[in-house]
Amino acid sequence: MDTSGNGLIKEGERLDSLQRNGYKILQHPGRFCFGMDAVLLSAFATVKPGEKVLDLCTGTGVLPILLEAKTKGEHFTGLEIQEESADMAARSVKLNRLEEKIDIVCGDLREAEAYFAAASFDVITCNPPYMTVNQGLKNPNDALTIARHEICATLHDVLKCASKMLKFGGRFYMVHKPDRLAEILIKMSGCGLEAKSLRIVYPYADKEPNMILVEGRKGGHSGMRIQPPLIIYDENGNYVKEVADIYGSEDETPE
Amino acid sequence: MDTSGNGLIKEGERLDSLQRNGYKILQHPGRFCFGMDAVLLSAFATVKPGEKVLDLCTGTGVLPILLEAKTKGEHFTGLEIQEESADMAARSVKLNRLEEKIDIVCGDLREAEAYFAAASFDVITCNPPYMTVNQGLKNPNDALTIARHEICATLHDVLKCASKMLKFGGRFYMVHKPDRLAEILIKMSGCGLEAKSLRIVYPYADKEPNMILVEGRKGGHSGMRIQPPLIIYDENGNYVKEVADIYGSEDETPE
Repeated sequence: MDTSGNGLIKEGERLDSLQRNGYKILQHPGRFCFGMDAVLLSAFATVKPGEKVLDLCTGTGVLPILLEAKTKGEHFTGLEIQEESADMAARSVKLNRLEEKIDIVCGDLREAEAYFAAASFDVITCNPPYMTVNQGLKNPNDALTIARHEICATLHDVLKCASKMLKFGGRFYMVHKPDRLAEILIKMSGCGLEAKSLRIVYPYADKEPNMILVEGRKGGHSGMRIQPPLIIYDENGNYVKEVADIYGSEDETPE
Repeated sequence: MDTSGNGLIKEGERLDSLQRNGYKILQHPGRFCFGMDAVLLSAFATVKPGEKVLDLCTGTGVLPILLEAKTKGEHFTGLEIQEESADMAARSVKLNRLEEKIDIVCGDLREAEAYFAAASFDVITCNPPYMTVNQGLKNPNDALTIARHEICATLHDVLKCASKMLKFGGRFYMVHKPDRLAEILIKMSGCGLEAKSLRIVYPYADKEPNMILVEGRKGGHSGMRIQPPLIIYDENGNYVKEVADIYGSEDETPE
């Protein structure tokens, strides 16, 4: 049954194409599967040649794998608190033969100093849980709930960790929800991450946005840029060219 | 020469139509003339029947006059530090026979308690100077420079005054520049004005924004709404319908 996965696929999991470099990712339909937010974040983040990247709340590792495909960064680390997700991420790294480029660490970002040296990353990315524990919380032990709600890490925990782990002048990239924009900018500033760039993602040209992409600079000066709007669908309901390009259109290449 | 102004027009001034209720406004080509920002702010601000409104940095009074035309607010006050601008604003109020509805006060917003009771307004609007004193300052005594640079009032002064003058739960509406968004949201929160709504104004669908419209609530809870984008021009360079409607298309009505 497992012809392409070299024994790395467990029962109930599926192997999805990432449409980049022939890379694939393991996902489990009952757990958190990556969405457009992760894909847009991978295009919003800039990683320069030779840079070291840490992805917080990495889940199944989609960000490090996509960034490895899209950039010339030297090394990528994904930190994930849920053991099963981290295990899937590590097996996806193996499946793509990226063990030299990507490390997956299972651990709590509130104790990141236990795993990494402070100020040791050039870039930090994060697609965090969007909802507070007060926003429609159902089952706090459920894997999906942990991925979506701030049970194991609040926004402030994420920003504090990012600030601690970034080199001075290093860049932080996060995708989040529009209703928390003010809180995000206030807390970023409080953690020494000055907002430098913001992109608002609107599903349609006449609709409210459903995502924001924000870039912060450790120790940066105030003064930011708001980028042109990212409008996902044209009037016919098709992806605009920029979004189609971000997703890529590569056919699955045989291993 | 002065046929429509009843002796209220001084040399060098011109009388422009506001395309609402037959209202007109005195402007001087050598001083600050209102732009699209004031017009968009007058549409972004909500004034309910019976409410009292204060406009800070009112200049020639365009905001109170437009809001009187567009809303059922009970009373409007414009506060302006520059004597000549305040004088023009007061004469425009007379020209439109709005003395019962609009007061123009010449004074310093940093001393607003000298003119008004604290917590006495339902709504405060402001189209403030956009630039700090460090941003390309040339002649600090020039009327245009005072209108554009934070010489007589900083962003923090404006927000402190708005917070002091607003009733609890009262609404603050401001137009400003995108590069100061993070600073604005941080300082609003610091002054007890919680950001509730944000609209980003993009000249074209593929360009960076050139204005932001922000609403704050005195004593509000955190959690905001980003509105659909306001894109000014369509692909042919014409105003989109919403902007054309905001400007109005009324012919000048004879007095």
